Amino acid sequence: MTPLVLLSDEEFALRISHIREAMNEASVKQLLITDNANLFYLTGRVYAGYAYIPAEGLPLFFIRRPSGLKGDGVVYIRKPEEMGQTLAITIDGPLGLELDLLPYSAVTRLDKAFGEIPFVNVSPLLRQVRAVKTPAQIEEVRKSGIHHSFVYSRIPHIYREGMTDNELQIEIERVARLEGCLGQFRISGDTMEIYMGSLLVGKNAENPTPYDFAMGGAGMNPSLPVGSDGTLIAPGNSVMVDMNGNFTGYMTDMTRTFRIGEVSPLAVKAHQCSIDICRAVAKAGVPGTPAKQLYELAEKMVADAGLHEYFMGLHQKAGFIGHGVGIEINELPVIAPRSRDILQEGNVIALEPKFVIPKTGAVGIENTYVVRADGMECLTKAPEEMIELIK
Amino acid sequence: MTPLVLLSDEEFALRISHIREAMNEASVKQLLITDNANLFYLTGRVYAGYAYIPAEGLPLFFIRRPSGLKGDGVVYIRKPEEMGQTLAITIDGPLGLELDLLPYSAVTRLDKAFGEIPFVNVSPLLRQVRAVKTPAQIEEVRKSGIHHSFVYSRIPHIYREGMTDNELQIEIERVARLEGCLGQFRISGDTMEIYMGSLLVGKNAENPTPYDFAMGGAGMNPSLPVGSDGTLIAPGNSVMVDMNGNFTGYMTDMTRTFRIGEVSPLAVKAHQCSIDICRAVAKAGVPGTPAKQLYELAEKMVADAGLHEYFMGLHQKAGFIGHGVGIEINELPVIAPRSRDILQEGNVIALEPKFVIPKTGAVGIENTYVVRADGMECLTKAPEEMIELIK
Repeated sequence: MTPLVLLSDEEFALRISHIREAMNEASVKQLLITDNANLFYLTGRVYAGYAYIPAEGLPLFFIRRPSGLKGDGVVYIRKPEEMGQTLAITIDGPLGLELDLLPYSAVTRLDKAFGEIPFVNVSPLLRQVRAVKTPAQIEEVRKSGIHHSFVYSRIPHIYREGMTDNELQIEIERVARLEGCLGQFRISGDTMEIYMGSLLVGKNAENPTPYDFAMGGAGMNPSLPVGSDGTLIAPGNSVMVDMNGNFTGYMTDMTRTFRIGEVSPLAVKAHQCSIDICRAVAKAGVPGTPAKQLYELAEKMVADAGLHEYFMGLHQKAGFIGHGVGIEINELPVIAPRSRDILQEGNVIALEPKFVIPKTGAVGIENTYVVRADGMECLTKAPEEMIELIK
Repeated sequence: MTPLVLLSDEEFALRISHIREAMNEASVKQLLITDNANLFYLTGRVYAGYAYIPAEGLPLFFIRRPSGLKGDGVVYIRKPEEMGQTLAITIDGPLGLELDLLPYSAVTRLDKAFGEIPFVNVSPLLRQVRAVKTPAQIEEVRKSGIHHSFVYSRIPHIYREGMTDNELQIEIERVARLEGCLGQFRISGDTMEIYMGSLLVGKNAENPTPYDFAMGGAGMNPSLPVGSDGTLIAPGNSVMVDMNGNFTGYMTDMTRTFRIGEVSPLAVKAHQCSIDICRAVAKAGVPGTPAKQLYELAEKMVADAGLHEYFMGLHQKAGFIGHGVGIEINELPVIAPRSRDILQEGNVIALEPKFVIPKTGAVGIENTYVVRADGMECLTKAPEEMIELIK
């Protein structure tokens, strides 16, 4: 027998209760989850199927694959239409669906399967729930942070003179994978793509990307226009490493910048400004703080340092300096000028105030933090200064 | 100046004409594309935005990011609402949208942006168009096949005694990446996930997966339950390698099976049956052949060999033996019992008749073929017999 739910009874009950609190607040009487990340949050595993959660009573788990799972509420189905009959007795008011993620065709099919009942969007509700991590989830993120930091500590030893950005990235990928990195870089939605993260050297950092990442890069092929582009790593360049921290199903997001020889004083100044911003924001980031206030704090420090034109990109600028992270890389809250998010204890947030300096490349750091009562605790502890690759 | 369209004028015109032929056949007067894979098909690059294709007249390219692209019909927008005003004059009848891919919320937003005009699903139409590759696309697939085959030729040299399945996979990943593999494993839709493909050793091949892949495997973590699970590679095991062939933005799909020492006679027999099926189906697969007829041919060969219980899985069986491949791994046609697809010249199809043999593991091969007038031409040429990892 293989249990469906891989969480402890207490943890499973805790997560269900968090979802139900949000349902009560939004007057949603039942919802149906099918997104991989939401199913993983709920059960501790990914399966093909659905989870039906009523405001009261037993949840039902409709499973197409894999075969052989057992547990309370498990019902095997071959197609979504089979759910309608099973659920008909319990539906009361609109059915909550992940309308920000489910394809239009899938929604119309579900709608028919349930007899054309009203439905309501619960994507924002689930994003809010997942934005506050449980202690068990924070431990998973913490574990990823330890492995992530270890991999970064190996980078000066991995580098060899004459490497391109892509060659260095490949060797870091290998070390990360041998350290337990799962590889998968989970992003909510279908529009952003990246493979094992980004490594940017020199002028390539100026290339704009189509994606909503903080930094750009031309990429190795126009089918995946982000990150390394085959640039030779040369003296005077910065080497920004922002690579995959998914070691447990829960990710950390972490960036460190390396250099070959001396980089320009402007780059050194901007890198220090990034470190200073992370520390100031982490200190200010107590529960109850508006996310946009943290963005404004960062922006003011940038302006005071006279570095505005290089901040978050040169020709194309990213509109945020931080974001929630967990099962996916783009969770809530978002640290941006018009964000309405308010920091809560248990948020896990990556801060990445970065700069692109002409001729040098991208500089700055990124850490992942958990919001505690007295501020943000860093989960990606490692030296933050720019590290020379050849001594 | 950076041109938006990275295809030659002739190739761009050819792809537009293929889309328009399908539009005419389906009486669709205009469509709006936003899926990354469809944009890459159309323009040779991925960008954030939309492509508007009327049945006649100039296409329009609405771009959010990256900055700096130029070309006929390029219009920069910040949000989809800006398209409504630009397009209002040209809309005639329903607007074609990718309803199998676009989230429900995105469709309702687009619907409002265009003044609540009727819309129609063009996902199937675009899948049909992309199922027939142009000569230029076939060359991209062929290039991937050459690199893919080369990487597989290195596998016996990569293996070291005492490796786990995951360790061998990581070293193959590195060699593939150094050979130019882009890493990204494109799958249409948001429900299937995999990282650089699958390597299955021994009994792990019996573990069912939630995904619609031909083979399973428990994976290294329940957040990504597919492929290698840390099994030590031991004598008597088969080692099935089905890893990423995306070297150009166009993928080949290729599987080879390796062994440590001798495997059971049943495994040897099943492996040969897989090779025989590939050859027979490739010979029979001329344009005009119903895909299901090819499935039936394979099924008959399996039954004649008395191997049915091991075919396409042991406890959980995949329902197909082949699938289209190109920009994504799950294109048309599908070689399955109830497929309505008819083979067309220019289809690129991966055939993967595989078996799971108790105690030994997964055996069989997979090749990617292009459908020619006289049958299917193999694009993943490499020895097909089971290859011993220790000599």
